[in-house]
Amino acid sequence: MSPSDSASSRDNTWRENWESASGFSSPTRLHSPPHIGRISKPGRSSYSAEQYELSPNLEEWSRSAHRHRLRPHYREGDTIDWWHEDASERERWKSMVSQHGLRGLLSPLMDVTKLWFIIIFTGICVGLAGGWLDILVMWLSGLREGRCARGFLWNQIECCAGVEPGEVCHDWQSWGEYFGISSILGQSLLHSFAYISLSTAFAASAAVLVISYAPYAFHTGIPEIKAILGGYPWTLLIKALGLALSVSSGLSLGKEGPLVHVSCCMSFLFMKLFSTFHGNEVRKRKILAAAAVAGVSVAFGSPLGGVLFGLEELDAFGGDFDVMWRGFVTSVIAAVALQYVDPFKTSKLVLFQVTNGSETWLAFELIPWLCLSVIGGVLGSLLIKLNIAAAVYRRNSILHELPIIEITGAAAVTAAVSYLVVFLRVPSSDLVANLFQECDPQRIDFHGLCNPTAMWENVFLLVLTGVVKIGFTAWTFGMMVPAGIFLPTIAIGATFGRAVGLLTQGLYRAYPKAWFFSACSPDPTVRCIYPGFYAVIGASSMLAGVTRMTVSLVVIVFELTGALSHVLPIMISVMISKWVADALGPDGIYASWIALRRYPWLAPFEFRDNGEIAADAMTHVSNLVVLNEVSSLGELKRVLNTWEYHGFPVVRNGTLLGYVAREKLKSFLEPLLDGSGGETRIGHFSGAQDGETADLSPLLEDAMQLRKEVPLELVVNMFRKLNLRHIMFSQAGALTGMITKTDIVALSTAHFEHRGVLAVERTSTG
Amino acid sequence: MSPSDSASSRDNTWRENWESASGFSSPTRLHSPPHIGRISKPGRSSYSAEQYELSPNLEEWSRSAHRHRLRPHYREGDTIDWWHEDASERERWKSMVSQHGLRGLLSPLMDVTKLWFIIIFTGICVGLAGGWLDILVMWLSGLREGRCARGFLWNQIECCAGVEPGEVCHDWQSWGEYFGISSILGQSLLHSFAYISLSTAFAASAAVLVISYAPYAFHTGIPEIKAILGGYPWTLLIKALGLALSVSSGLSLGKEGPLVHVSCCMSFLFMKLFSTFHGNEVRKRKILAAAAVAGVSVAFGSPLGGVLFGLEELDAFGGDFDVMWRGFVTSVIAAVALQYVDPFKTSKLVLFQVTNGSETWLAFELIPWLCLSVIGGVLGSLLIKLNIAAAVYRRNSILHELPIIEITGAAAVTAAVSYLVVFLRVPSSDLVANLFQECDPQRIDFHGLCNPTAMWENVFLLVLTGVVKIGFTAWTFGMMVPAGIFLPTIAIGATFGRAVGLLTQGLYRAYPKAWFFSACSPDPTVRCIYPGFYAVIGASSMLAGVTRMTVSLVVIVFELTGALSHVLPIMISVMISKWVADALGPDGIYASWIALRRYPWLAPFEFRDNGEIAADAMTHVSNLVVLNEVSSLGELKRVLNTWEYHGFPVVRNGTLLGYVAREKLKSFLEPLLDGSGGETRIGHFSGAQDGETADLSPLLEDAMQLRKEVPLELVVNMFRKLNLRHIMFSQAGALTGMITKTDIVALSTAHFEHRGVLAVERTSTG
Repeated sequence: MSPSDSASSRDNTWRENWESASGFSSPTRLHSPPHIGRISKPGRSSYSAEQYELSPNLEEWSRSAHRHRLRPHYREGDTIDWWHEDASERERWKSMVSQHGLRGLLSPLMDVTKLWFIIIFTGICVGLAGGWLDILVMWLSGLREGRCARGFLWNQIECCAGVEPGEVCHDWQSWGEYFGISSILGQSLLHSFAYISLSTAFAASAAVLVISYAPYAFHTGIPEIKAILGGYPWTLLIKALGLALSVSSGLSLGKEGPLVHVSCCMSFLFMKLFSTFHGNEVRKRKILAAAAVAGVSVAFGSPLGGVLFGLEELDAFGGDFDVMWRGFVTSVIAAVALQYVDPFKTSKLVLFQVTNGSETWLAFELIPWLCLSVIGGVLGSLLIKLNIAAAVYRRNSILHELPIIEITGAAAVTAAVSYLVVFLRVPSSDLVANLFQECDPQRIDFHGLCNPTAMWENVFLLVLTGVVKIGFTAWTFGMMVPAGIFLPTIAIGATFGRAVGLLTQGLYRAYPKAWFFSACSPDPTVRCIYPGFYAVIGASSMLAGVTRMTVSLVVIVFELTGALSHVLPIMISVMISKWVADALGPDGIYASWIALRRYPWLAPFEFRDNGEIAADAMTHVSNLVVLNEVSSLGELKRVLNTWEYHGFPVVRNGTLLGYVAREKLKSFLEPLLDGSGGETRIGHFSGAQDGETADLSPLLEDAMQLRKEVPLELVVNMFRKLNLRHIMFSQAGALTGMITKTDIVALSTAHFEHRGVLAVERTSTG
Repeated sequence: MSPSDSASSRDNTWRENWESASGFSSPTRLHSPPHIGRISKPGRSSYSAEQYELSPNLEEWSRSAHRHRLRPHYREGDTIDWWHEDASERERWKSMVSQHGLRGLLSPLMDVTKLWFIIIFTGICVGLAGGWLDILVMWLSGLREGRCARGFLWNQIECCAGVEPGEVCHDWQSWGEYFGISSILGQSLLHSFAYISLSTAFAASAAVLVISYAPYAFHTGIPEIKAILGGYPWTLLIKALGLALSVSSGLSLGKEGPLVHVSCCMSFLFMKLFSTFHGNEVRKRKILAAAAVAGVSVAFGSPLGGVLFGLEELDAFGGDFDVMWRGFVTSVIAAVALQYVDPFKTSKLVLFQVTNGSETWLAFELIPWLCLSVIGGVLGSLLIKLNIAAAVYRRNSILHELPIIEITGAAAVTAAVSYLVVFLRVPSSDLVANLFQECDPQRIDFHGLCNPTAMWENVFLLVLTGVVKIGFTAWTFGMMVPAGIFLPTIAIGATFGRAVGLLTQGLYRAYPKAWFFSACSPDPTVRCIYPGFYAVIGASSMLAGVTRMTVSLVVIVFELTGALSHVLPIMISVMISKWVADALGPDGIYASWIALRRYPWLAPFEFRDNGEIAADAMTHVSNLVVLNEVSSLGELKRVLNTWEYHGFPVVRNGTLLGYVAREKLKSFLEPLLDGSGGETRIGHFSGAQDGETADLSPLLEDAMQLRKEVPLELVVNMFRKLNLRHIMFSQAGALTGMITKTDIVALSTAHFEHRGVLAVERTSTG
């Protein structure tokens, strides 16, 4: 039966609200993508959040949204209900194993083989792709400054391969040398022209590529991964190419996040090869989680960091050790493949090897490091706030409509400003590598960084670089190009860290005998302060302030630098910086973007209620569309046609019997209603007593039931730990209300001012 | 109201069954430790499993079990219900924060400070203790062979500190040299006498110490940690000393597991300093989990491995990132403290540094490594089976009563046999370190292992050593001395691995030009096969076969050996070995011991039902003791006096209202029933209507409700992920049954033949 009369009039009001809020009107409703099984409160459109879900189908869907007959059984756009998907996966496995004879033995084996094929090949491809991308980026960004005399296609590292560190590489020619321009003015003009124009051209091509061919390939991918774990086949190439172009353009962005997305796209392509993976969203997502891990592993050369990243940030891991193990395997294979390509010709996974002069650190150094941690926390929080402000501003301005112009302009400005400051001009990764290095007479001094007489100039330049980079990064992360935030953040942190290191070193050189430096040798020529390591501390605290990761961040930093002996100060700085940043604003950059886009993702950190109970958040039973135990099939059909919800609670005189999913009910009803006359037939959810009544009991699913007095915190925890889609509330058996995952997500992002600002608008179909 | 008449007669039958099964009789029931809130099926005594719970109180309890007035609110012996403990922790925090003025600011701060004080000091103390234990063990085991000329208290490493590798250390004198005995016969007799007698004496002292002073300090501690995460203050010293003595005695055991327990004891001692931690079991356990991680970190010099061990093996981690982060901090601090002590004078955390001749490995080597993985899986499974057989045999034989004699005898036999075989005679850690080393002309050749002409002798000796060690280890692990299984397992695996390595190397030397070796240089003097790394592979696959750990094992192995470049073959071998071993028997050594002792611990791996639903495992409502919504207080008291269950479902005409915990109900009833006449007063669980009726509604707790048709797999998953104690089943609101954690544990260990054989018997009190 449809809801009782009083309830249905209330429902109608609410329905109108919902329609006006989401921009739907009745006739098109069925052609629009599905609404997940929640009873939204009026005015709170949960809509666009789900639209993004399981993205492989998004493009296709936006093209053919009205061809809803082609939709697979599991509708795209839904929040996956792991609880029920797990059950269907179990069914599949059981039916496979129970086959007779050889098939019963071989098909499970084939199934596992396919899985591992995907895992292993994703690992290999991601590692190779990551390595080749690095080589391409080096060549492109080198082009902005000059070319290799040995051949146009050689990048700077290949060109100078045989040259000892400390020697000048003669094979590498600046454009001035190449064109034989001798006047200094001419050289300067040519160099700045080449640098700025090529940077702008790269950025513009990246933007055109992405916007014309793969509109969902922009941005880091990490918020998308965290929330959705999807990938589009077509975006793969675009994203990879766009990534190389945008990184080479000198825009303040990193390759890390997009590489994660590339990795997910790859595993998705491999999954398409096998029909086994169709229709099982949980299985797909678990593989995509492993792929994401491989992406992180390759981006940072950090196989363990990748696994821990997965554990700390990805929903799909949720205590599942199979996923963890698969992620670990993919991660290590990818790292080995990367090592095989060896893009930086170092034979090492470690990207920014720290040359530790000393194996130990001194207690007094904790004081400057403490300052750095606080600076990192404050600046990290500031960067997030600026970034969100920029995103909101962009959304509301004309720039939103002109992404290519915006990107080209930003690239031109970035290149012009960067050309003026020596530390900004080099690619971020070179800057970081040099800032992490200790001074060594055997190596070329990086732009006079090791010159003790130029301390103040260096400190000024470093701080300037950091400040400018904060501005650029805040603007850049969020434009329509593939962009990661990790590398710029590291660069910002490293500049401030090195500056503090230089200041501490200067202080020591000026007062070598002060009590403060009593742990050092009183001879100021003996080295005591290692400013390179200060840069590492600065980078880690900045990263902690921006991303709010903890364990995985520490592991990534020490895999990135090889500084295992200094892990304790790194850890302390991460901890303090996170505390400071959390005090200034609770959300990290990824959580902020998820909230901006309103993805249905639950943050892993603990949600604390202020004494609220479930009843405060649930949709009361009077606002729910419920089905009665005994209903005519016609009525059921009408409910299905009227309401878009993912499913409906089933009651007998108010007592909750269970939950029936929309799709199940629909596919059950269709054959029965195909002819005529079936409309008046009675369906019975508790089982049919006679042949006339349709037995609907197999459709009934179990619903998690709690009393509505449960603290909200526990409810949130259950959603998180069990990956549920809804929880029912009952009092002595009677249904009192329901909470869905979308409610919970809305709740946990309620404090976020600009929530949903960037949620993708519904592509109109009706 | 007590159960209805028909139900209560059924209950009586069942009660008798239960009493006979658990050895209880009515009058003593209240003096016995509590029975957790489960309705055991007749004949299946879940009793002793819980008795062990939260062990700090166990000793005290066994001494004063009849002083039940002294029991704290939360009774020892209970399975912790995280669901409800979390709620009380939340209450505590809220009331603390909501205090007025400065108190509201300072007391949360103090609370956090106390927590971190414990975490940090546990880390430091565990690191120092681990280092000092290593030094003590080296001195004690050195004593069996000789003494240092520089002083009696110097161990061999300190004694030979200045000696270059490759030189002979003249300061270290064997007993023959010290006593000036020149005849070879005399020397041999003296040496064997000193070796065997001292070994036996050490083992006997360890046994006496442990059995007289801390009967629960025996064994590895890892099954106990996994299941219980408890620690006894007094056991700390005994365990540490007993550990040093038993490791030095040459018995086939490792220091790892016990060190984990020592670490937990330490943090427990620190917790005793603060009243904040009293009464909050979840909080205690989370700290103990961090301490356990530090123990692993120190035992293996593997801070990351420790954290991953925690993730993979400890219940308490369950997706909680606070716990993970705390574990990481403790772990790293402990590792730094260990490095500060530097017991092996290597300035390295890495215990068994692998000296990799080559950075790469060759594809054909995968074939011998594959063989090694299979060997590891088979032998690992065999070791578990032998070990369990030995444990069961011991339990049923007279040896059970004579632990000191058994230990002394075992030590004597071990020492006598070991003295004859050169690889058995040295301490296991020395053996492993040498087997992992590649041959190097600059180092002393370890007992001719690098002599190419003695290949067959070496292979024979290595295999003999491995086989003997399997036997010894299977017997030793389970005796009443502190013992770990990790090191002996590594040693066994390393002997077989090195043997396979030597064979492969011999094959290469014999046929250097075979197609099989085409990747090697055709000149046999150029090294191609590195048998030391084969030992690492052997050790990892043996470990995987015995412990069935995956990610954490790989991380521990590569932190142990520093072989990051070879992580891929290590991973493959772990994977294959685990598959082979799983095929031969599903349980690892820890899971087996947990089943033997019947601890209430749920294995993290996925439970697969064979189509069973919850109804197949639940206790039917007719066998449950349920309370009615409206009951007289006297009746409630009688139910409390009659039944020992942790709590009771509350119903109204069969409709489930909630759950009331025994302790809550009891402490509520006591003041009301203190005088006389209260017995006939009516209590109402839905709230009192008038002043006469006692309002019991605040006692009602929420109960997780499911339909009984839910697949069993999902029920098990919920218990695991939410750390529940019970789930209620209802049909349209009516209570149909209940499953408790103990039921689930029984279910998941049902396949285990000797389940509960070693469960501790009830110490009789009545």
